Amino acid sequence: MASEILLYWSSGSGPSWRVMLALEEKGLSGYGNKLLSFDKKEHKSEEVMEINPRGQIPAMKHGDVIVNDSMAAIIYLEAAFKGKGIELLPSDPAQQAPVLQRMMETNTLMDKIRNVVFINKSNLDEAKINQNKANLRAEILLWEGYLKQLGGNTFITGKNFTLADCCLFPSVAVLVRQGMDLEKHAPNLAKYYNTVKERPSAKASWPPHFKTSPDQDGLKDLY
Amino acid sequence: MASEILLYWSSGSGPSWRVMLALEEKGLSGYGNKLLSFDKKEHKSEEVMEINPRGQIPAMKHGDVIVNDSMAAIIYLEAAFKGKGIELLPSDPAQQAPVLQRMMETNTLMDKIRNVVFINKSNLDEAKINQNKANLRAEILLWEGYLKQLGGNTFITGKNFTLADCCLFPSVAVLVRQGMDLEKHAPNLAKYYNTVKERPSAKASWPPHFKTSPDQDGLKDLY
Repeated sequence: MASEILLYWSSGSGPSWRVMLALEEKGLSGYGNKLLSFDKKEHKSEEVMEINPRGQIPAMKHGDVIVNDSMAAIIYLEAAFKGKGIELLPSDPAQQAPVLQRMMETNTLMDKIRNVVFINKSNLDEAKINQNKANLRAEILLWEGYLKQLGGNTFITGKNFTLADCCLFPSVAVLVRQGMDLEKHAPNLAKYYNTVKERPSAKASWPPHFKTSPDQDGLKDLY
Repeated sequence: MASEILLYWSSGSGPSWRVMLALEEKGLSGYGNKLLSFDKKEHKSEEVMEINPRGQIPAMKHGDVIVNDSMAAIIYLEAAFKGKGIELLPSDPAQQAPVLQRMMETNTLMDKIRNVVFINKSNLDEAKINQNKANLRAEILLWEGYLKQLGGNTFITGKNFTLADCCLFPSVAVLVRQGMDLEKHAPNLAKYYNTVKERPSAKASWPPHFKTSPDQDGLKDLY
């Protein structure tokens, strides 16, 4: 089954990582995959454009099924491989609701990190740069609050690891990678990070260049 | 069942409209709802903040279940009211995939409309304004192509109206509302618009201020 999957991904892309976590958690280790280089513009290659006319990654095929958006892909994977690996989306609608809600909210966290770390700052004045930092601090506080409200020591919607965690963890890992002191400013998120990074799925999908190039300092001065 | 729902919404908000379309299609007409005014900052009221700490709309309660993000809310509604009204997400994973894919892609269309119509242009130079218009034209072409590829006369993923249409239609309606000549530049999208706007769900959820205030010209000079 895993052999029928082909995932195009790139190292450190949050959306790619979400899908890779879901694939591992669904017990699909060994899925077909191609690591692409943004620098070489491989995401705009004919091969990728054929399955994703947007020329973006992730791009994923499973047999004849094409599904590229990371959120769409992981909801699909849960449905297509129901009963295999970990159940990442509960069947009960009331239990589904918080998973779907937190999942979708992770796009906001990802955007706010992007607006501080990965944005071209030459076009921004200092007031805007400071505003973006304040927005990210507020966003982090919200996620810290969600965990705190659950009593700590849980995943983002409770005791089970779900699609919401597949979506959240890559962004939390970027906070750490970019030099934010999680322990100090968001202790529950720090605990969360330390728990999830030990999962076999996180280890198997860890971005190769995180291991070979030094940590960055994009968030050293966030606070 | 509809009486257990409470939706906070505002007139013309695309994300609110998505949820309202889904509610109508699921046969839940008469659901509890409160129309909020952005101008009066009612989306930041205590009442809303209590169920959505982001102070954003839509915000939705169904009994004890809270789900605010529009994508999360409509996937939840389909699951919670399975067998009622129209089936908006097929059960078969392979058929689900294109629905989920197109659904998620509508966020990109919405963003690109926002970057032309609803952005503060005083901070943008002419090159950036023109780039945003070019991006929106390319995005519209993509959606026009999706419909063309299906042979025309269909909804966005085929012969059935789905969650993807709940998400797409509000953005297409904004293109028209803002003065784009759909017939000329995207004839399949124009056909799509004319079909969907006649559905009872579209009529029941039509933004009140679209009826009482004149059409706008934010996209008159898109081409």
